[in-house]
Amino acid sequence: MTTSPDSAVREFIDQNRTAFLDDLAAWLRIPSVSADPGRAGDVRRSAEWLADALRRTGFPVVEVWETPGGGLPAVFAEWPSGEAAAPTVLVYGHHDVQPAAREDGWATDPFEPAVVDGRMFARGAADDKGQVFFHTLGVRAHLAATGRTAPAVNLKLLVEGEEESGSPNFGALIRERTEQLAADVVIISDTGMWAEHTPTVCTGMRGLVDCQIDLYGPAQDIHSGSFGGAVPNPATEAARLVAALHTEDRRVAVPGFYDGVVELTDQERELFAELPFDEQEWLSVAKSGATLGEAGFSTLERVWARPTAEVNGIWGGYTGPGGKTIVPAEAHLKLSFRLVAGQEVEKVRQAVSAWVAEQLPAGIRHEIVLPGATRPCLTPLDHPALQSLVRAMGRAFGQKIRFTREGGSGPAADLQDVLGAPVLFLGISVPSDSWHSVDEKVELDLLDKGVETAAYLWSDLAEHWGPGDR
Amino acid sequence: MTTSPDSAVREFIDQNRTAFLDDLAAWLRIPSVSADPGRAGDVRRSAEWLADALRRTGFPVVEVWETPGGGLPAVFAEWPSGEAAAPTVLVYGHHDVQPAAREDGWATDPFEPAVVDGRMFARGAADDKGQVFFHTLGVRAHLAATGRTAPAVNLKLLVEGEEESGSPNFGALIRERTEQLAADVVIISDTGMWAEHTPTVCTGMRGLVDCQIDLYGPAQDIHSGSFGGAVPNPATEAARLVAALHTEDRRVAVPGFYDGVVELTDQERELFAELPFDEQEWLSVAKSGATLGEAGFSTLERVWARPTAEVNGIWGGYTGPGGKTIVPAEAHLKLSFRLVAGQEVEKVRQAVSAWVAEQLPAGIRHEIVLPGATRPCLTPLDHPALQSLVRAMGRAFGQKIRFTREGGSGPAADLQDVLGAPVLFLGISVPSDSWHSVDEKVELDLLDKGVETAAYLWSDLAEHWGPGDR
Repeated sequence: MTTSPDSAVREFIDQNRTAFLDDLAAWLRIPSVSADPGRAGDVRRSAEWLADALRRTGFPVVEVWETPGGGLPAVFAEWPSGEAAAPTVLVYGHHDVQPAAREDGWATDPFEPAVVDGRMFARGAADDKGQVFFHTLGVRAHLAATGRTAPAVNLKLLVEGEEESGSPNFGALIRERTEQLAADVVIISDTGMWAEHTPTVCTGMRGLVDCQIDLYGPAQDIHSGSFGGAVPNPATEAARLVAALHTEDRRVAVPGFYDGVVELTDQERELFAELPFDEQEWLSVAKSGATLGEAGFSTLERVWARPTAEVNGIWGGYTGPGGKTIVPAEAHLKLSFRLVAGQEVEKVRQAVSAWVAEQLPAGIRHEIVLPGATRPCLTPLDHPALQSLVRAMGRAFGQKIRFTREGGSGPAADLQDVLGAPVLFLGISVPSDSWHSVDEKVELDLLDKGVETAAYLWSDLAEHWGPGDR
Repeated sequence: MTTSPDSAVREFIDQNRTAFLDDLAAWLRIPSVSADPGRAGDVRRSAEWLADALRRTGFPVVEVWETPGGGLPAVFAEWPSGEAAAPTVLVYGHHDVQPAAREDGWATDPFEPAVVDGRMFARGAADDKGQVFFHTLGVRAHLAATGRTAPAVNLKLLVEGEEESGSPNFGALIRERTEQLAADVVIISDTGMWAEHTPTVCTGMRGLVDCQIDLYGPAQDIHSGSFGGAVPNPATEAARLVAALHTEDRRVAVPGFYDGVVELTDQERELFAELPFDEQEWLSVAKSGATLGEAGFSTLERVWARPTAEVNGIWGGYTGPGGKTIVPAEAHLKLSFRLVAGQEVEKVRQAVSAWVAEQLPAGIRHEIVLPGATRPCLTPLDHPALQSLVRAMGRAFGQKIRFTREGGSGPAADLQDVLGAPVLFLGISVPSDSWHSVDEKVELDLLDKGVETAAYLWSDLAEHWGPGDR
């Protein structure tokens, strides 16, 4: 499936690499942490910086969009092909980032990019600023190599500002802007590949439902000698809730949770099994000592194709030095559920809410907040646009491209549903890039491959994907 | 069980009340807050003031003891009976107090005693200076009423200075001074009664084993989309550990935990049930919406006579605003176990440690720290010294004396073990005295009852408790 690389594309990249990396570093310096209300100004600054960069790239239409619901701004850009038959492609990414602080254990300041041994370390380097940014040099390389003045496809770009906060207003945004966003295919650049030497295309993402559960017991912390053992303890009940989330074989125990789940086909299980998976290596990336998950599934199947329930945070009572013999007044949980194709967000939310209410004893009051949710999505292996993407990547990498899925979640499914277009994943990042963790980085040679793939893709799509396929 | 009051004792108290209260007020003005290193000088001044007061009372031996480990000073006093057959009694109390400040919401300065409507308001008025001090007038009333020049028992007094800081050096102190402290019975004056019109004697305290359990999973927080559902999550495992602590009927599920537990007798259960217990009132003091505890036991039985496991604190993962989709690297638990008579601290510690190790899956490393422990203690209802105490209180109150226990834990058990003597609780204080809270006070008429009980007790003990009972 590989074809020969394009020396004109490579030459253009070589000539423009330094300026491109300097530009990316400038963007990474903006701490666009969407989860932190105190950083709202930085998220806006990041959007404006990107809009300016896209204008410099050559996009004739560039707009900073206010997000409905008082959300953080997104950036939209459009570059029409000028050819009537050209397909319309919408590239999706995000410009907000996860929280990060030097004190968390970073070797360098997370918001002062550092290039060391061919890697650029910074929060957002891989997730997702680096991947959004390779499209800017990519489209310029596409034009330079083909001699065109506009891309072979009608190219649109939507870069949101709330992805790391669960894209709470993204659905409303794209519903409000459906006309401008209309596309024949959506390309998501916010995922990763199997490994540096095993390039892959992802065919689906899991969805996400997250929630915070607040449990309240005594009106204040009370003496555990005088009252302990005779009143409900919210920390104990929070723990019992978490324990009840899973059965002994680590299936999610919430009734109705698995309703509608699209089960893996034999072909998919075989393709997954073909990947050079080394469990010890995977564990070393996961920085974990052992695997543990739903009985009857491999590790890859568990993270790619099975729904899960995870505790992201738990707290309650005394957490300082020494002991304090109290029954705490409250306890809190942050839970998230990953969904797979076939599961419906609203049904899962209702199932979780109903289940929580049933678990708690008298004397424990609870509140549950379900702030955001992301739907799962999945593109069939034989889709023609998927074939174009596989060819473009094959040219960039000079290798057979394999298939994966993504365990994480993004707004891909919303785009698929609202725009009525298939979703492809062009994600050039490797597991060691430390998304959401300390020392996030991007491999500079992979950044090149991202630019190159983007440069080949528009020609291939225009050539191979006819209106009849849309 | 009540006998007639002694008019000589009452007369003596009436004649000396004013001077006694002035003296107590002077002591209460010394802010002997042991938890505050800046008050160490005040704690020492409090010890010296008490030593002087005990000399004025007539004790021929009075010593200020330095506490091992650089602890705060205790006061020891001794007044031999002079009769060869007399039993030896050690009275225990403490002269340090909880922190207090007017700004906390006190109606008056906590270290400037104020007498209002028959109550003296001051930090330490009930816990524990008032209760220590009634023994001074008590022994003088005993001498005045009996015409003796020395008490009917060999009377010893040990008043420590670190009780409100958890008595960290008390075990070492009494082991160092075992010979001087040797006694046939220990009387603790540092507890309370059921209510002003329901005088009671406490017959035991629960013990305490506390621990911190640290669970470690991935070497750092990892992305729950990429790895969640396939690696063990320390927050989940901490929660499962807590959930596994109790069975569905809220018994402690740690194997061996109940080994040796002295079960309640039918008589004790009947006596508890006789107390005028109002569950709604108890819940309002507990500030809780409902009761919950070990199946098959009443609320009073649960807090007084049953061992428990309680979560005092739990924390792990992300606890800030919004969500963070991680599998956290670590999670932590602070647990405490209340023990009842028959349980051994070391066996409970071993049972808990072994159980924790068995619960955790591969990939979760754990550490358990068991910093301190307090043993339980219990005096049988038919103990002759307890009968003497009940008779003395009955004479003072002119009422039937009932029985309670104390759900909290204190150094009583250490005294019992080190001195090999039974422990009795002579505590004259009511729940509204606001121990550890704002507007702590002592009811002056209850202070009288304390003096009176102490005055009757030494004669009764000398008369009814022969060497054969020791």
